[in-house]
Amino acid sequence: MAAAAAAPAATSVKADYEALCKKLKEVSALSGISGLLGWDEMTMLPAGATESRAAQKAALAGVLHEKQTEAELGELLRRLQAANLEGELDAFELANVREAARDYKKLTAISKDLAQREAELESRGYQAWVKARQESDFSAFAPVLQEWVNLRQEKAALVDPSVPVYDCLLDDYEKGMTAARLDEIFSQVKQGLVPLLAELRQRGQAPSDEWLKGEYDTKQQAELCNKIAVDLGFSLDHGRLDVSVHPFTGGTHPTDVRMTTRFKKEDLTEGITGAIHEMGHSLYEQGRNLEYDGLPVNSALGMGVHESQSLLWERMVGLSRPFAAYLLPLMRQYFPQLPADKTPDDLYAALNIVKHPSMIRVESDEVTYPLHIILRYELEKALIEGKIAMEDLPALWNEKMKSYLGCLFGYFPTYSLGAMYACQIFQAAQRELPGLDEDIASGSFGRLKGWLNEKVHKVGSLHTSGDELMKAVTGAPLDPQIFLDYLKHKYTELYQL
Amino acid sequence: MAAAAAAPAATSVKADYEALCKKLKEVSALSGISGLLGWDEMTMLPAGATESRAAQKAALAGVLHEKQTEAELGELLRRLQAANLEGELDAFELANVREAARDYKKLTAISKDLAQREAELESRGYQAWVKARQESDFSAFAPVLQEWVNLRQEKAALVDPSVPVYDCLLDDYEKGMTAARLDEIFSQVKQGLVPLLAELRQRGQAPSDEWLKGEYDTKQQAELCNKIAVDLGFSLDHGRLDVSVHPFTGGTHPTDVRMTTRFKKEDLTEGITGAIHEMGHSLYEQGRNLEYDGLPVNSALGMGVHESQSLLWERMVGLSRPFAAYLLPLMRQYFPQLPADKTPDDLYAALNIVKHPSMIRVESDEVTYPLHIILRYELEKALIEGKIAMEDLPALWNEKMKSYLGCLFGYFPTYSLGAMYACQIFQAAQRELPGLDEDIASGSFGRLKGWLNEKVHKVGSLHTSGDELMKAVTGAPLDPQIFLDYLKHKYTELYQL
Ligand SMILES: [Zn+2]
Ligand SMILES: [Zn+2]
Repeated sequence: MAAAAAAPAATSVKADYEALCKKLKEVSALSGISGLLGWDEMTMLPAGATESRAAQKAALAGVLHEKQTEAELGELLRRLQAANLEGELDAFELANVREAARDYKKLTAISKDLAQREAELESRGYQAWVKARQESDFSAFAPVLQEWVNLRQEKAALVDPSVPVYDCLLDDYEKGMTAARLDEIFSQVKQGLVPLLAELRQRGQAPSDEWLKGEYDTKQQAELCNKIAVDLGFSLDHGRLDVSVHPFTGGTHPTDVRMTTRFKKEDLTEGITGAIHEMGHSLYEQGRNLEYDGLPVNSALGMGVHESQSLLWERMVGLSRPFAAYLLPLMRQYFPQLPADKTPDDLYAALNIVKHPSMIRVESDEVTYPLHIILRYELEKALIEGKIAMEDLPALWNEKMKSYLGCLFGYFPTYSLGAMYACQIFQAAQRELPGLDEDIASGSFGRLKGWLNEKVHKVGSLHTSGDELMKAVTGAPLDPQIFLDYLKHKYTELYQL
Repeated sequence: MAAAAAAPAATSVKADYEALCKKLKEVSALSGISGLLGWDEMTMLPAGATESRAAQKAALAGVLHEKQTEAELGELLRRLQAANLEGELDAFELANVREAARDYKKLTAISKDLAQREAELESRGYQAWVKARQESDFSAFAPVLQEWVNLRQEKAALVDPSVPVYDCLLDDYEKGMTAARLDEIFSQVKQGLVPLLAELRQRGQAPSDEWLKGEYDTKQQAELCNKIAVDLGFSLDHGRLDVSVHPFTGGTHPTDVRMTTRFKKEDLTEGITGAIHEMGHSLYEQGRNLEYDGLPVNSALGMGVHESQSLLWERMVGLSRPFAAYLLPLMRQYFPQLPADKTPDDLYAALNIVKHPSMIRVESDEVTYPLHIILRYELEKALIEGKIAMEDLPALWNEKMKSYLGCLFGYFPTYSLGAMYACQIFQAAQRELPGLDEDIASGSFGRLKGWLNEKVHKVGSLHTSGDELMKAVTGAPLDPQIFLDYLKHKYTELYQL
């Protein structure tokens, strides 16, 4: 009988797939622990324990590398890739095999020793950065940065010596992306933004945010932001809200997402904007499909898509006119000293002031920052290609992002890609969810969150690139023009061009 | 030349020893991570993340077990034990080999699967306990406890089927101790304590603590206790102070010791006593010799010795007359409502009231609790030997300690051993540090801390048993009579017998 004859092969594919999943879930659990070490280091670790923490991170990174590169895993993947999987595995299961094979190929290229040196340097680098910042002394950080450059070059040479170093590093953050494609996208963005910014500077009537100046108790700010996070959909049953020097979203699992914020008493809006940003990251994490818990298809598609979720909430929602109608009364509840005569329109205008380009990331606006990113991208590429020297870098020193060595070389461009994805995704949401503006103005964010859960969060790494995800969600690959049109329309009105 | 001929062997022992240390340090770093998972679970973990945390703990326990039982480690130990180590390794290095071999032998007896089931059940057990406590429903916890009993029996049968189950489990907590020796010690304690307690009840004039009754803000209590902890020598540069439902001392490393406390607004002294107790554990942890960082000689000698350090500070210091002279003015600073006419003698008396034996651990006193422990010990032994049934246990339900499955079967007796060690160690300290009482009364704890650092903390697991450590520190093995004499003298005076 045909069924009986086919059975052994089927069983074998399924058995291999199950064995693969078991291994991948173990790796996922260990990665979750690594997430805890990182979160704890940023929020809880005593100052005198940085050395032992570095040793712990290195030990765990070593174990993870062993598990992720073990021969048995490679053998399972080889058999599965050689088998005919059509009809045996569904699209999510196929994506698990595909992503696992991709990771395995990348990781087996580098040595356990290199992985440990990376982890150790990342930890040491953060401490060196904090110290150097305190003492405003770039030279205390430069040697660590140089070590990092060397490690990145070493890594790229091992993974794929046939492609440019920067392309190889970029692929870790944004699958399938190349410097050539980025150059294309960024040149289009530059072409559109440079004249817009010049016009804003020359003829624009900058709105005022003078009325927001003042002192705001940071504990009250934290409570306000926790309220906003919960309103937007952050689940405290599956996460924590804490305070740290550099705001970030981490944690150990979709059921344990830990978001941090920071507050300055002299700046009320920066804390709110930063909190909404991290909340966007958190919703992406909390929104994963637990049916595929611990499997690669359930991980984030990439950094660009991750940023698209934070920036969608921060900018498309948080900096929108309807959101100001929700936010202003709430701000008044926590800070009754705010002037009574100001309207949501005034808040909307104040939140969207185009700032000077020297501003640091979390304070920067959506018009100038892309140009800044493009500059950084060009500098990073030059640095990794050995075309500029470390001594020329102090100009970039006043950058929070530099604290994370792991974010250098390949990460930055994803921020701008994220802004463009966010714009295009939000446009699709507005099309598909009539009355969305009214929802936002009245503080009802559930429909948008649910839509993002279905369209973006739950599909994780099902698609092979940001462009593929954009096609599935919006009907077309990334189109920078949508972003440029949005900015032009918004700021022409705001600055009365 | 003789030197040249001897060289190869010497090099080989040293090389093996260094290779051993490298492996042991990796295990130590991973154990530190396991400590973080535990601390975080008790203080930080969102309620909805217990399942993923259990998976993480199980994954890490599995990795630890793999590392601790790998064949290469066994081979190194075999070679080192076969070699002539005299003159090659010093006493601390010899202890490293000895302790590593002991652990290896124990661990290779049990399977990875059993280790993972234990870790998983411990985590699940804690959650089940919290829930059952909330609902005052022992039957919700009994099945978990029964699973634990089964796992313990399974483990003992694998490790050493030739010794009684209870002896085998006891050895994990208190090296070299047996139920037979415990029966001896405990029968001497019983013989001394039962008549003392009867006398206290019949003829004793109980001091009053009525004047301490009242409401005390728990945040103020926490600040008072943090002040006391720092005064006693707790380093905030190498540790944290937090609040948790059940006070404990954990952390990841001697430079990262995390102690938690809890406070009730209606009981001021319980919080203080509990904090001093945990502080004693913390000083033992922070006091380790970093020269042997990550090696077995640097780990705690055992639970009994650990308790000796907490109880030395809690009872010998914290419940002493001189300490009351330091404490009362401090309490008044934080709680000005305390009656102005009370003296340190009044506080000393109030702190040392002999309570009803049904009191739970952290509220119990030094006279009745040993008898309670002895009862528990007898029950545990009966339970593990199958001589009583699970249904008979709800009587013991009102016990905080039951939250930790890992503390059941073998752990409890160490608490009383710790009280006796503490008494004997403190007597030696008083002999060697003239003027110690005056130090304590004036809030100078540095000499005592330094003495304990040298005599107890830094020697870690150098000695092979509690008795050996007692010989080195006090000149004689554990002598329960010292403890009985101390209690008799103290309470005869306090209760005017
Ligand atoms: Zn972000
Ligand atoms: Zn204790």
